[in-house]
Parts: sequence; C-alpha cells; structure tokens
Amino acid sequence: MALSDLRPVERNEEGIAAVLGILKQRFGERFQTGQAIREQHAHTTTYLPTQPPDGVAFPESTAEVQEIVRACAAHRVPVIAFGVGSSLEGHVNAPGGGISVDTSRMNRILAVNAEDLDCTVEPGVTREELNTYLRDTGLFFPIDPGANASLGGMAATRASGTNAVRYGTMREAVLSLTAVMADGEAVTTGKRAKKSAAGYDLTRLIVGSEGTLGIITALTLRLQGIPQAISGGVCPFPTLEAASQAVIATIQMGIPVARIELVNALQMRAMKTYSKLDFPESPCLFVEFHGSDAGVAEQAETFGMIAEENGGGPFLWTSVAEERSKLWKARHDAYWASLTLRPGAKGLSTDVCVPISRLAECVAETEADIAEMGLIAPIVGHAGDGNFHTLCLMDPDDPAEIAKVETFVARLNERAIRMDGTCTGEHGIGQGKAGFMRAEHGHGVDVMRQIKQALDPLGILNPGKTLPA
Amino acid sequence: MALSDLRPVERNEEGIAAVLGILKQRFGERFQTGQAIREQHAHTTTYLPTQPPDGVAFPESTAEVQEIVRACAAHRVPVIAFGVGSSLEGHVNAPGGGISVDTSRMNRILAVNAEDLDCTVEPGVTREELNTYLRDTGLFFPIDPGANASLGGMAATRASGTNAVRYGTMREAVLSLTAVMADGEAVTTGKRAKKSAAGYDLTRLIVGSEGTLGIITALTLRLQGIPQAISGGVCPFPTLEAASQAVIATIQMGIPVARIELVNALQMRAMKTYSKLDFPESPCLFVEFHGSDAGVAEQAETFGMIAEENGGGPFLWTSVAEERSKLWKARHDAYWASLTLRPGAKGLSTDVCVPISRLAECVAETEADIAEMGLIAPIVGHAGDGNFHTLCLMDPDDPAEIAKVETFVARLNERAIRMDGTCTGEHGIGQGKAGFMRAEHGHGVDVMRQIKQALDPLGILNPGKTLPA
Repeated sequence: MALSDLRPVERNEEGIAAVLGILKQRFGERFQTGQAIREQHAHTTTYLPTQPPDGVAFPESTAEVQEIVRACAAHRVPVIAFGVGSSLEGHVNAPGGGISVDTSRMNRILAVNAEDLDCTVEPGVTREELNTYLRDTGLFFPIDPGANASLGGMAATRASGTNAVRYGTMREAVLSLTAVMADGEAVTTGKRAKKSAAGYDLTRLIVGSEGTLGIITALTLRLQGIPQAISGGVCPFPTLEAASQAVIATIQMGIPVARIELVNALQMRAMKTYSKLDFPESPCLFVEFHGSDAGVAEQAETFGMIAEENGGGPFLWTSVAEERSKLWKARHDAYWASLTLRPGAKGLSTDVCVPISRLAECVAETEADIAEMGLIAPIVGHAGDGNFHTLCLMDPDDPAEIAKVETFVARLNERAIRMDGTCTGEHGIGQGKAGFMRAEHGHGVDVMRQIKQALDPLGILNPGKTLPA
Repeated sequence: MALSDLRPVERNEEGIAAVLGILKQRFGERFQTGQAIREQHAHTTTYLPTQPPDGVAFPESTAEVQEIVRACAAHRVPVIAFGVGSSLEGHVNAPGGGISVDTSRMNRILAVNAEDLDCTVEPGVTREELNTYLRDTGLFFPIDPGANASLGGMAATRASGTNAVRYGTMREAVLSLTAVMADGEAVTTGKRAKKSAAGYDLTRLIVGSEGTLGIITALTLRLQGIPQAISGGVCPFPTLEAASQAVIATIQMGIPVARIELVNALQMRAMKTYSKLDFPESPCLFVEFHGSDAGVAEQAETFGMIAEENGGGPFLWTSVAEERSKLWKARHDAYWASLTLRPGAKGLSTDVCVPISRLAECVAETEADIAEMGLIAPIVGHAGDGNFHTLCLMDPDDPAEIAKVETFVARLNERAIRMDGTCTGEHGIGQGKAGFMRAEHGHGVDVMRQIKQALDPLGILNPGKTLPA
C-alpha cells in the first residue's frame, strides 16, 4: 500500500453546506465544526494523513442517528461513524469531508441478562466501562483488543485480541445489533436466542463492515462467566519454530488455553528493560488458563510438558493474581516498550494472520525480511490464532523510510495471503489495507461491491474505506 | 403458516425446455428427468406437498455447477441445490420447476490440515463420512444434527444439533466456502486463517442462505480434537422449571458441557418403552462432558450438585463408552420412539429457540397449549441453547387436524418471537416458515431482499424460499 493508493472521494460542497446548516440548527451545541475537534475525529494512529470531516455530531439515540443519516442522504453527504478513534487503518478519516457521527453520548448499558449471559449496550460504551459495570454479576465481556475501544467500533472492525483463542472475536461475541442503514431506516438484525437459522445473517454482515453498510446504534453481546481460577506464566523457547510447535500441540490437544501469546527475542529485550522484569531474551510464550482450581493447575502442568517436549522451558507459572497481573501488564505494555528501541520514532503496526501450521514459517521469513531491510520491528503475536503484529519503528518525516516500510508491509501481507492467510486478523481494512483486498478476496471483492451498491446506492456511508478503488 | 401461504413461483416453460435440452446433451446420464428421481429430489419430511424439479443434474466439480447455473441464468430457469434431502421445511422443493443440482457426486475430501484443525471438503460429503475419514487423525467434526446430512446442506441451512452448546453451529464451523453465484461466477469467501477482519463476511452471509444466494461447491470446516475422556448421564427433575434452572446454573458457572438435552415426561415415556431403558417418567436432562479424565469427573460431580440444588436427581453418570452409547442411542431414537405414541401418524417437528431464561416458560406454555388443543406432541430440546422441538403427531390426510397443528405451530412461533427468540433454531426457513420472517425480522426482511436482488437479480436461485412473498 502506498499513500497514492488511498481512494479519493469527491467533495460535494453544496450538499455539505446544506447539511452543516441543517445539523447546526437541529443539534445546536451537539454539532461542532471547530478545527481541533474535526481533526481529532479524523486522527489515526498510523502515518496516514488526517482527513477531517466538516462537522461532528453527538447524537444520543438511534432516532437522532436516523435524522443525521437522512439529512446526509438527502444531500449526498458522507457519514462517518466514530467510537473513540483507536482504529489503526484510517477508518475514521473523511476523504470527501462530511459528517462524523460521534457515539460517545450513546453510552448507556441498556440491559444485562445475567441468566442468558448477554447484555445490550449502546455503541459508545467502552469495553472497560462494560466490565466495570458487570463486576458484581460474576460475568465479564472477554474481547480485549488492548485499547479501551468503544464496543460499536470493535463490532464495526471485527476486533479481537489476546483471548480470542478461547472466547472468539466480535464475530462470535455480537448476538445481534441495531444499525441505521444508508436510507435512514433502522434495522435490528436478530433476537436474543443463542442461535437461529432464520434468514440471512445480517448481524455478521454488519460486524466488520467498518461503517460502510450501516451505523451501529445498539449491540447485544455475549458475556462469559468469570472463571473460578486463573493460572498463567511465561515460557522461553530456543527458537520461534519450537515455540510455534508448542502452540500447535497445545491447541491440538484441546487444552482450552485462554491466551497464548508469542513474543520474539527483540520484543522480549525491549519488555525486559521497560517493564523491569527478569525475562530471558529469547522467543517466549505468555500463556493463561481459565477454569476450576484443579483445571487450571492441570492445564498449566500439561502445557509445561508440551513446552519441554518442544525444547522450551522452564515454564514458570502462578495462580497468584498479583504476579499474573505484572506479567500481563508487561505484555500489554509491549507497544510502549517497543518505542524505547528507537526514541522519537513512530510505530506502524502490521496485522497478518495465517493458519497456525504456517505461523513459524511466516514469522521467520518476516524476521529475515526485517533484518535484510535494516528495520527495527519487534514482533508479538496471538499465536493460538496465527495472528501476529510487527511494530515498524520509523521516522514519519523521512519519505525514503516510509517507502521502505511500505515495501516491507506489502511483502508481509502478500506472504500471509500466499500462506492461505489474511492481511488483517483484527485491525481491519479501512484505508490502509484496501489495496490488498483483491489479492486476498479475488472475485469476492465484486460480490462485496454488489452488496455495498445495493445497501448504500449513494455511497454516503464511510466512503473510501474497506473496498478498493 | 398455512399451505396457502406458500409462495407461488411462475413456470417459465420455454426456458425450462431449452435448459433441459442443453443439460441432457452436456451431461448425458448425469442428467435425469424420470419422474421417480424428480419426486425424490423434492421430497420433504414434513406434510408440505412435493413440488418436483424438471430435471436433476449430478455435477462433479465447481466448473460443472457453473455451467449449469450459466445455462439456467441464460434462460431464467430456477436452480435448486440438493444434498441428501434431509431438510424439514421444503428447502428442496421446486415450486416453479427448474433444475435440481444434486451434489452427491461432489463427495471428495480435498484436504485435512491436522495441525490447523481444519479440512476442506466438497458439499456432498456427509458428516458421518467425514468423521469416518478423520478417525485416525485424533480429530472430529462436531456438528451433529441427527440425520446423516451433507455438509453443503448443513452449511446452507445453518444446521446445529445436540452439541452446539459447546462447539457452536455451522455458523462457527465453516471457516470459508466456495459458492457459485447466480451469474455463474465462483467466489471463495475467505482463506484458512482462524480469524480475519478483511471486508464483509461473505462466509456467514452464504451460510444459512438456503441456496438462495449461491450454491456451495466446497467448504473449509473447523475440526476439534477428540476429547481424552467423555462422561455423561441422565438426571430426572420434578418439573421442567427445575430442569431449566439447572441448565441455566450449569451454563452460568462456565461448565463446558458438551451436550445438555431436555426431554419432557411424555417423551421419556415413549423412549422408555421404545428403547427398553429404565427411565423415570419425569422431565430429564441428558448431559455429556468432554475433557481430561479428571476434568470430566469434576464436571459431572459439579453438575450433580447443581441438579440436587434444583431438586433434581439422582444423577447417574458414567465414563464407560458402552453405557453412554446406549443412553445417547435412546436420545437419538426419540423421533422413532415418539411415532409409537400414535401408530400411523406423521410427525411435524417445530424448532423454536429462546433465551434460556425464557426456556421453562416457553416450554410450559407450549405444553399447556398441547394439552388444551388435544395434540400428541412430545418435547425434546437442546436446552443449553434454548432450542426445543415438539413433534406433532398427526394424520396427514385429515385437513382439520392439519389446520389445528398449523394453528399450534403459529402460536408457538409467535410465542418464541415474543420471548425474544426465533421461529427456527436450526431447521431453517425454507417454504414452511417464510410466513414468520416479517414477525421475527421486521425491516430486516427488506434488507435481506435488497441483498437477494443484488446478488440474484433474475431470482433463479431456489425461488420461493427463505424470504416471504
């Protein structure tokens, strides 16, 4: 992907002017057009340029989102849904201007059905807010992408994170949702039954559609029981291959591991210094087990044996909450630790996901590529899913370096696709990866375009995203 | 649903004649037009009338399915995909005639990737064939709808069954698929990575679309490791409410129960006689646990305590394979056992699914309705999912009785939808339930219709199904 590949979207100045007038009058202080707030709503955590919307609306209900979308539809003006802005691929940019729909005031938890292990929330609720609210129920929401993202945004990008290996991704976690479609009609995609064979799966169609098919205004989410016990630890391995083989054996034996994270040697070095922990500087697996007291001990012991059989160890594990927290804090701080490897640099995160049988090969080829290209790019991965990130540390003001990183990213994405994988396991396509959609999906891109055309014939929902030019 | 609600589809005699000529010439013996074979390909296991296609093609590859669809598209002739014909809602009927595409010769297992716990198969492979093939790999395919259905048909109807509570449904089990779309183009919906955030979820869109959006010609399926140990047993309860509370507590405590089946007193009576087992004639839960030796014993003991706390018991369980098999054979024979309650009658199976908090209420109201209407209709349910079936035993030649059963089914479906549930947990919509789509999905039906129109503008793929008139 080169910056030049970003899909341009033509500005409809007349329509935008009309909508600005309508929304200002209708929403008053809840419609903002100041430059700072507009830029903040297009801010991306990559090197992608900021493309601000023309105004930011703060609706408080599905009905208000419908009003905004109807005004924009009437004047053919883009509408871009906004959660907290933690997406990585330019999802909230406004290449043709238009209206950012900030869902932060739609932050009510509408229902918790403890007996059914589900809850219904507005899209602006963040995952941490939800888990704080649930604390006394014995339940938790398991999807953890790291950032304290909004649940609407997480659904829109099909997010996941460290414990997807056990609890799945937003694809599995969203039971149904309400979305405002491009014509302003609201649709609720399903009931609260755990399964249904009634018609097309509109829930899964809208999850991951990045605001290009509808704007999510409510979500019913599956919850999990807080496990009775948790054990976890860190295990070093002589090589990435050995660590990957241990992951495969763990999954294949059906050990219900809750997290199994691969960290390469460079990343371990950065974490060791940053988090002041006595880590070995070799590839490691961070693992966690959820279950009964006896169950988590059994799981940890079985994993220890698997690690040893694959040349790894010692596997140091604990059920003590404080010790576990320290370990996982170090893992979660990996991003900040990485940045210390090159002070002043900005990080660009990649996100490929491959079948786990190809994980070691894919990581090894990528490490070789990093060395050959002279990049500084530590690696952490959700190994149980075959998903890993490299954080490319680069000078965002050096075009030659950007070009080099772009070449690296393109080679990495193509490598993953060649290995029967995907260019994005959890970050989404947005603007940044649209250039890889054809390589990954072939004719599927045309089918997606037919759907987009049918559901958003005017092309007003988050234009310039997800689908390639 | 009344028979009069079945969507008529106009016959295109000229087009059909043209396609019959083309396919006869192209496929020779692999294209059949005899009456018996045509009727067999429209046979349904309900009281729905048989509506035979005009010809049955037996393609052997995706390319051949493309040829058939292209010929039918050119002449605007319906194409109906056919697996083994075990669907219950008239999915394979041909209300406007046309061509049945029998996938039984597409029965190769294309790849088993043991390290990745997945396999790729053609759609005509049945679930039992796959599991026989996998026997030596330590893996199995967990979705078990009872019938030895084809995997293509199971995906098309989003099937599930007794162990969906642990392993999910076809929604979760299909990693990606290849489908021939209405224009004859083939699309592969994803790679083999366990997760992806790349674009619209075409896999989940086609799973459950009942052959109305595309014809599945290959599937990549998730497999599971065969558990080290299995334990299971039967536990009686004084009331359905007590049994349902035990189910809720089991799920909420996070016990990874593999099956948890509710059987009402009438069904137990039938099974007791039919299967010659010493069953109590009260509501029972049939349960099964998968895990390590220690794990399954712990799960069974914990479940026993939960049952006792809810007034149930004694819970008799075993890890001995032969004894378990006898129990589950009795459960699987429930359909045949039921038929003995009224010799000569035909059974019509209902399929509602509600949030488990409403399960006891929904079953109790349904039992009361059965009593009030004087029907004979035992109940079995996949209680962990909130899904249950009543088998209405009726004389298919008595219009008054059919009308009464139709009233009962309509009340049941509306009850489930009112309780935030669905009219079909796993059997699908087909023809039989299309009349309930609007009540369940509201405006969602229009969105589905927009998608159908975009992907099949000529309406040739399985017309008269899934969407209401």
